This record gives sequence, structure tokens and C-alpha cells, in this order.
Amino acid sequence: MGATHTPMSQSVDSFVSQNEARFLEELKDFLRIPSISTLPEHQPDIARAAQFVAQQLKAVGMENIEIIPTDKHPLVYADWLHAPGKPTVLCYGHYDVQPPDPLELWNTPPFEPTIRDGDLYARGSADDKGQMHMHIKAIEALRAVHGTLPLNVKFLVEGEEEVGGASIAKFVPENREKLKADVALVSDTALYAEGIPTLCIGLRGLIYTEVECSGPARDLHSGLYGGAAPNAVFGLIELLAKAKRADGVIQIPGIYDDVKAPAAAELRSWSELPFSEKEFLEKEVGATQLTGESGHTVLERVWARPTLEVHGVAGGFTGAGAKTVIPAKATAKVSIRLVPDMDPQKVIAGLRRFVEENAPAGCKMEVRVLSSSPAIMVNPDHPAIAVAAQVFSEMLGKPTVFTRSGGSIPIVGDFGRHLGIPTVLMGFGLPDDGLHSPNEKYNLKNYYVGIMTIAHFLERYGA
Amino acid sequence: MGATHTPMSQSVDSFVSQNEARFLEELKDFLRIPSISTLPEHQPDIARAAQFVAQQLKAVGMENIEIIPTDKHPLVYADWLHAPGKPTVLCYGHYDVQPPDPLELWNTPPFEPTIRDGDLYARGSADDKGQMHMHIKAIEALRAVHGTLPLNVKFLVEGEEEVGGASIAKFVPENREKLKADVALVSDTALYAEGIPTLCIGLRGLIYTEVECSGPARDLHSGLYGGAAPNAVFGLIELLAKAKRADGVIQIPGIYDDVKAPAAAELRSWSELPFSEKEFLEKEVGATQLTGESGHTVLERVWARPTLEVHGVAGGFTGAGAKTVIPAKATAKVSIRLVPDMDPQKVIAGLRRFVEENAPAGCKMEVRVLSSSPAIMVNPDHPAIAVAAQVFSEMLGKPTVFTRSGGSIPIVGDFGRHLGIPTVLMGFGLPDDGLHSPNEKYNLKNYYVGIMTIAHFLERYGA
Repeated sequence: MGATHTPMSQSVDSFVSQNEARFLEELKDFLRIPSISTLPEHQPDIARAAQFVAQQLKAVGMENIEIIPTDKHPLVYADWLHAPGKPTVLCYGHYDVQPPDPLELWNTPPFEPTIRDGDLYARGSADDKGQMHMHIKAIEALRAVHGTLPLNVKFLVEGEEEVGGASIAKFVPENREKLKADVALVSDTALYAEGIPTLCIGLRGLIYTEVECSGPARDLHSGLYGGAAPNAVFGLIELLAKAKRADGVIQIPGIYDDVKAPAAAELRSWSELPFSEKEFLEKEVGATQLTGESGHTVLERVWARPTLEVHGVAGGFTGAGAKTVIPAKATAKVSIRLVPDMDPQKVIAGLRRFVEENAPAGCKMEVRVLSSSPAIMVNPDHPAIAVAAQVFSEMLGKPTVFTRSGGSIPIVGDFGRHLGIPTVLMGFGLPDDGLHSPNEKYNLKNYYVGIMTIAHFLERYGA
Repeated sequence: MGATHTPMSQSVDSFVSQNEARFLEELKDFLRIPSISTLPEHQPDIARAAQFVAQQLKAVGMENIEIIPTDKHPLVYADWLHAPGKPTVLCYGHYDVQPPDPLELWNTPPFEPTIRDGDLYARGSADDKGQMHMHIKAIEALRAVHGTLPLNVKFLVEGEEEVGGASIAKFVPENREKLKADVALVSDTALYAEGIPTLCIGLRGLIYTEVECSGPARDLHSGLYGGAAPNAVFGLIELLAKAKRADGVIQIPGIYDDVKAPAAAELRSWSELPFSEKEFLEKEVGATQLTGESGHTVLERVWARPTLEVHGVAGGFTGAGAKTVIPAKATAKVSIRLVPDMDPQKVIAGLRRFVEENAPAGCKMEVRVLSSSPAIMVNPDHPAIAVAAQVFSEMLGKPTVFTRSGGSIPIVGDFGRHLGIPTVLMGFGLPDDGLHSPNEKYNLKNYYVGIMTIAHFLERYGA
């Protein structure tokens, strides 16, 4: 530890170590709630998860706890504001999770948390329940050891992160005073690799859409009509195939116009990261080869280039066996990831134009935008980021690296735009955690170290 | 009626008229059995439907009734062979039906037969329960009126027509003696239009496949991996889009090599049929325009040209809302319709080569063939066909037209190949019956006239 810094409280670390088993049991209870935000039948689980977060916040001494109803899933708010003159940190997390399907690929049930080899397997263990829980436990540790907190803290936890976060996006600009803070803290990202302290300073944005193709008025017999009637599934296939070339170059008009290339220094720092394309392919992706735009490294492609993905196509017949039908309607889930300085509205307009201009013969097309958010970048020179980098480095004994993530955390942009504050993206996941995949896991050592690191960040930033 | 022909029995017609209500109730009982052959959970319904057919055959005096187990769904056999020196007719039909989905588009439940405006609405009403039932009721009428049958009759009814008919295809060559006959009779086609006596003399063949694409080892987060990892759904889209051009021309190598164009006389007769492209588009297809190969009329495209259709794509996320996944696996149901003289094995080899040569980067491809059967043509000068044409014409008061169907009835080819007999394709459906679609129907007048016409055909052919 550097002598010029406020020394990190050893007693906080001891408290965390002594309470590991209890913290873990609490987290497991949290993970047992299948709070899948996209499936309406899980509405009661969403309510239970929000309640759970509120109770946890209460238990560690947070005040003014509210479960705030929204148009969809509730927000949970709490604060502790008894450190006048000290900065205020706004802790953000989400209690909702992705659907667990395909269920048959899970080694143990997604909502029965199971420990294997030091990893905790469950849907939401890393994304984001396990990480968000660290914030609460850091508060508990600080209060247990010091009897107070070193700065002011607010919590805002949402239940719609996995479905576009419309409610929090509406809430933030309408509650600027309530949410006023100096910096936001989000733990929803990963270490660049095991043991490497990592602060994420860039996130891609996301436009999520449904592209629908309507052909015949009803499903038709492919024998009687095949050769003369339009097929909605094939029409959609024709259109989508034109949207991205085999070399990964997207064909939406104007999509690359505003793309801002990373600065030379940032590119240089990425090239120094311990990245192995072979390991990335074999251990993480597991395909025969990587794909994407030539002339860009893998890290550039996933961090700093826009992408277009089709997540699934509904319509026609997909059951067991054979059905000879010409489908009347087909819908694809299509997303576009955005990088600085792409304007979501401009990209949506380009997508609509592309779909219109490439509508297959005999078919009507519709584009429905489910959510959209721009990419965000955080200035690494901000005092809170600098403190976080120092603490992180001291905890793990290595220099902190600054990375980006190809994923999207739209709220970070909202905090910047509406509250005028940067976000410390201090996450403790690992690249192979399997977010959104079967067998999602969270490393237990990182969970405990994460609690300590966050507590130390709050101590140091408040000092 | 022509004076040179055996006069048609008025008393058969009277018997049918007097028993309409009872025949209809029996048919409705048959239609209430959801004997969906492609869905394993309907296995008990398949068994019930086979039993129903056997009981109906017994009730009309057929003999040697057998429910014959197969690897999948049972065959029902029966015969009546007490007319020495007279020809033998092999009556074929199928008791299985297509799945009814999408259920929400049915005006009344698919397995609760409902009459509206003289049409009987139910899954299987036209394809093929209602039509097959006519054969049984024609036998009943003949025996009721004459106390005997004018010729020898065999029945072979299957439960796998909608899933490729593998069991009957195996049974026929192994039971040539048992099935020996002079001609087969199949009612699974439609009148060219209301009131026009129609014999179908050509059917397209069908190759039904599953084309599977495997990309990453597991579903991946599209934020973290999008831009560098292959997407199985998109890979499949890329490949399938290459399989058929927007103008309908199929790109499978060699697919058009053996296609036999219809004779000039046949093309001329088609051009004289009362076909309205506008009505076909508006009343049957219901899309904004028709599609397909230029340089061929609509009837040529659906009767005499090969087609490639994608019936659905499984894989990835297709539920409500958003899931940002890069799918690991995707499977498309792909069929190819065949015309004379295309060889199914040659086409399958071409498809496999096409898939291999166009495999998307980073993905592994697999083609599974679920069924295949060649196109078939029947000689209209065969005596049984000639008799059928005469009787049909006399019943409806118009010249019989010879058409083809774009659909596939593979058993007709098997009867030709293994039993050396032609098939009379004498169907009483209508073009707008909605086979394989929601709100399938069968016209009740055609059902009763069909029973009479089939009875008269058997009388005249036996004379």
C-alpha cells in the first residue's frame, strides 16, 4: 500500500472474512428468486426480489427506503445522508435477470444456487445480483466497523435492466434532486482477467428491435402455393441476410458515418492486455473460428465497433417433425450495438430505411423499437475513478487497467446526461462467467474481495 | 347420361340423401379426434383414429380388418373379395392430420367440427378424413342398395401421411400380394373449381429436411461477443438466403437438370382453365403480390416447377421482449418440391453440396433428411381413369378436366412402382379449403356428391 494514501481498514476485511458464510447464504436466498423481467408470469418473483433488496438495505442501516412502483417493475431507493461535507455516491444495480433457457444445458438448476470449485452457479449470480449485493455488504461492513459511513450513500436498484430499463430511464430525469450525487457506482462488469484490477470506462449502446414480415393472409400449404406465394420466413431471411455482409460489415445506410475510433493511446493500452485470440475462441466462444470485420482486432470488434445481431426468428413451424407450411408471418429479434458517437435515432432511421428499401416481394415489413440507448465513455481522470483505480490496484497488487465492454448499461448514460455525474464501473465478474448463458457463475473469492474493495473505495473517496 | 354407359343407380343416390345426417354425425366424430401425427403427445389420438376407421369399415361389411402396427403409426387394412372375375380397387386414405397452430386464427376450435354456410370447419375435414370417409360411405351405399359390391375392394389407410409416410412406404413393397389390385383410388385432392369435375394426373414430390447450424459452444452475450463470435441464427440466414434468388430461381447445383417440361397439349389445356391470377392472389394467398419464377404461369409454377421453402427457424430467443443472445444453434425446416423427372437422391446430394460449400464462417452445418419422394404422373388413357372421368362428368354435368397438384401424395408413386397400378385421384375438395391452415373446411355438398360419385365409379368400373 502506498504510504501517501489513507490506509485501508484491516478491520473491514476481517469483518467480511468473518461473515463470509452468512453473506453467501443471503446471496443464495436472493438468487433463488427467479426474477426474470421479460416473462410476465414472473411478475410475483419480481415483486419478491424488490422486497428482498429493500429488506437487505434496511438491515444494513440504510434509510428512507422506498419500493417505487413504475409502469413495469418497481425501483428500490434508499439513502444514508449523515456525512455533511462529504461526497455522495449513488450505488446502482439491478435485481432482474435474463431467462434461463435453454434449461437443458444447465448442469444444476438455474435458480438453485450451487457451489462448484469456488464458483457460485445460478442465473443472476454475476449479472447482477451477486455484484449488486456486494454494495449492500460493503455498507454493512463499514457500519459494523466504524459505526458510521465515510460519505453519503444513495441506492437506486431497478428490475428492468434486462428488458431495456424504460422505467429508470424515465425516473432519473424526473428525480434529479433526489438522486443528486457526485459519482455513481456500478458493479455489473468483469475483471479483464482473473486477478487484474479493471475499471471499465466505455460501454456500447444498444438498439433492440423486432422486425416483422407479413406475407400471405394465412399460413398456406407449401405444395399448393409453393412457387407463387410469398413466404414470410424466407422474406425475412432474404432481408436480414442483406443487412450484414459475411465479413461482418453492416449494410444499414450511414451506420458507420459517426463511429469514433478509439484514441491511439487507448488502442495501444488494449494491445498490451494479456489477450489470447486462441483462448478467447476455444475457452469462451467455442466455435470453429472467430468472425467479424477484418482490419480490426478482436477487442476493437467487441468494444469499439457497431454490430448487428439476429437473436431469433419466430414464425412458421419449428416443432418436431414436418409441417409443410408457407408461413404468413415471421418476426426476428434484431439488435444493433452502438459505439461513440453514434446517434441511436439516426441509426433507427437508417434501419427503417434499409428495411423499407429491401422489403421482399409480396411482403409487408414493420420495425418495432423495444429500446435504444447510446454508447457511453467515462473520463479516467475524474477523482472518483482515480481513487477507485488506486484502491483496486492496492487490493489486487497489480496496476489497474482501463477497458471497455461491448455490453450496454444504459443507465450510465442517463446518470451522465441527467445528473451530470460520471460512473465508476467497478465490476468483479470474470470473462467466462456465462452472462445470459446456461451455467452462469460468479467467483466467490471475487465476491468477498469485491465487498472489501468497494468498502475501501468508499472509505478512501470519503477521506 | 350417355345411353352407351351402364346407367347410374338412382337408388344409391337416394340412399345417400336419406342418410346424410347420420353420415355427417359419423364424420364429425372422426374429426373430433386430434390425430396429429407429428406431435408425440397425440399418440393416443392416433390410436383412437385408427380404431375409428377399423370400426367404420367393419360396420359397412368390409372383412379381414386389421390394425397393423408399424414403427410409428398403425395402418388399417380391410378387404371384400367376393366378385370373382371383376377388377379390384385399392382405396387409400389417411386418418392423420396436420397440427392446427396457429390456434388463435381459428374462428371455431379445430377439433370441434362446426358447420357454417354449408361448409364443415375442422382440422382434417378436407385433408383427408372427410374425403377418406366418402369411400367407406360409398361402400355402405352400394351394399345397402345391391346387397353386394360390383367389384373387389381393398382398403389401406395410414396415419403418417402428414409426416412423410415412412411406414406405408415400407409396407407396400413387402405386401405386394396382399395389396394386389387393378387400380388405386385416392380422394385427397380438390376440384379445380366449384362444380368442375377434376381428375388430378400429376403430383409434385417432396424432400423434407432439417438444416442445422452450430456456431458457439453455448449461447453468448451479444454485447460481450458481438462482432467476433459467429451467430448460428444469422449463419443459417446467410446460407438460406443464398439457396433461392429473389426471383424464385433455386441455387442448389443441378436442381433444374432433369426437370421435364409439361407437354404442349397439357400446357394448352391449363391455359383454358378458368384461372384468375387476381382471384388467386386476393382470395387464396392474400399477399400484396405473387412471387416466383418469371417466364412461367402461376399454374406452371405451382404444378410443374420445383420449389424451395423454409417453414420455420428454431433457435435463439423468440419470446416476448428482449434477450441479447448470440445463439449457439439454429435449425431450419427446409423442403424442396420435385417435378417429373427429378431424382430425389440427386437433389439431396445437391442440397448437401450446397450447404457444405456455403457453410457460414465459424459454423458447422448438418442436413437431416426427414422424408423424400419423387413426383408422379398418371396416364389419363388408362381404363379406370377414363371411367372415372366419364362418371365425374355425368354427375356434375360438365367435361372432366385433367390437372396436376403442387402437393405431394407419395403413396401414389409407391403404388405405381411396387404394385404396378395407376391411381385415380378423384378428390372433392375446393381450392380455398385451407389445407394445413387455420379454418380448414370441407364443403358438405361435395361430401355427399363425392360419396355418390365414388359409388357410381365403382359400379361402372365393375360393370
